[in-house]
Amino acid sequence: MVLVDESRKEQIWRVAVRLFRERGFPGTSVRDIAEAVGIQGGSLYAHVSSKDDLLWDIVNHSADRFFEKLTPIMEQDQDVMPRFRQAIIAHVDVITSDLDAAAVYSTEWRHLSPERREAFAARRDEYEAMFRNVIREGMEQRLIATSDEGFATLFVLSALNWVYQWFKPDGRLTAEELGKLMAEYIFDGLRRRTS
Amino acid sequence: MVLVDESRKEQIWRVAVRLFRERGFPGTSVRDIAEAVGIQGGSLYAHVSSKDDLLWDIVNHSADRFFEKLTPIMEQDQDVMPRFRQAIIAHVDVITSDLDAAAVYSTEWRHLSPERREAFAARRDEYEAMFRNVIREGMEQRLIATSDEGFATLFVLSALNWVYQWFKPDGRLTAEELGKLMAEYIFDGLRRRTS
Repeated sequence: MVLVDESRKEQIWRVAVRLFRERGFPGTSVRDIAEAVGIQGGSLYAHVSSKDDLLWDIVNHSADRFFEKLTPIMEQDQDVMPRFRQAIIAHVDVITSDLDAAAVYSTEWRHLSPERREAFAARRDEYEAMFRNVIREGMEQRLIATSDEGFATLFVLSALNWVYQWFKPDGRLTAEELGKLMAEYIFDGLRRRTS
Repeated sequence: MVLVDESRKEQIWRVAVRLFRERGFPGTSVRDIAEAVGIQGGSLYAHVSSKDDLLWDIVNHSADRFFEKLTPIMEQDQDVMPRFRQAIIAHVDVITSDLDAAAVYSTEWRHLSPERREAFAARRDEYEAMFRNVIREGMEQRLIATSDEGFATLFVLSALNWVYQWFKPDGRLTAEELGKLMAEYIFDGLRRRTS
């Protein structure tokens, strides 16, 4: 992405996401953002209403991206395990395509105002329910063996969400390869099947 | 834990860990820590030399706890899969016994000075190598089926490290039960074995 091709607003957004990730939301001032963009603090307010609103927009934009990717997969008329696999690959794709945004989405929502935090949590729960539903469906069809769909969902999302901490865009695996490998580990585990 | 029974130094430590987690290291001032403890900013320096040193002590204390738990397990004369399982349970135990410290250890090390960051990364790599070695051993004995011990290690640690984000000490599972469940998922995956 070449910064000169971005509008000022996009540039502010990108810098804010990076700083919120690097320094945390409480550790980032409007002035820090303005300085990193190379404008006066006051000028920033021509583009963003407040730091709180910026965080709100950022986490909602991430949520939108997760929903946009997952919803069509979940609505497909397809067998449950291939659907589950596609969902894993899609979730990894959203994370790896913007690691900073994934980090901010995962950790900085805690700094939203109480009402917004509640709205955020409801959306996140709704998203997680898509994974929970596919796991329940797999259990009903006796394709998935777990006694606890809630913890199984947390296991899946834990394995996937941490990816933003270590994924290297120029590393050995592409995002899609990593998603496929993650699906393999999640479905079949590490232990060799002896039979 | 009753605060009046703690020494002042322990109290500062505990408050700093909580604030570093909640607000991030850059978002927490020495004054914030002093205020939360209920002393003057200046008095804090009787107990801690600097905010940087405090972070350094905190992440090293966490690293010590991980090593103390894992090293004896890895040195046991025991079959590889039970050893791997015990290592997973122990790792979850360290995380769940101090969620704030686990969060700070996982994310705030980025704010160490460059030399300390390097020393920290070396210790963390040494720790992760214990998991990598047990996975390699399992592969050599044809008990573990993965083509990539590096990504298998990242998969295991991803699934475990995210636990600090959602574990509830008063929730449905104890730390040990969760560790066992995690080991089960990691070893056998979610897919029902058909044979």
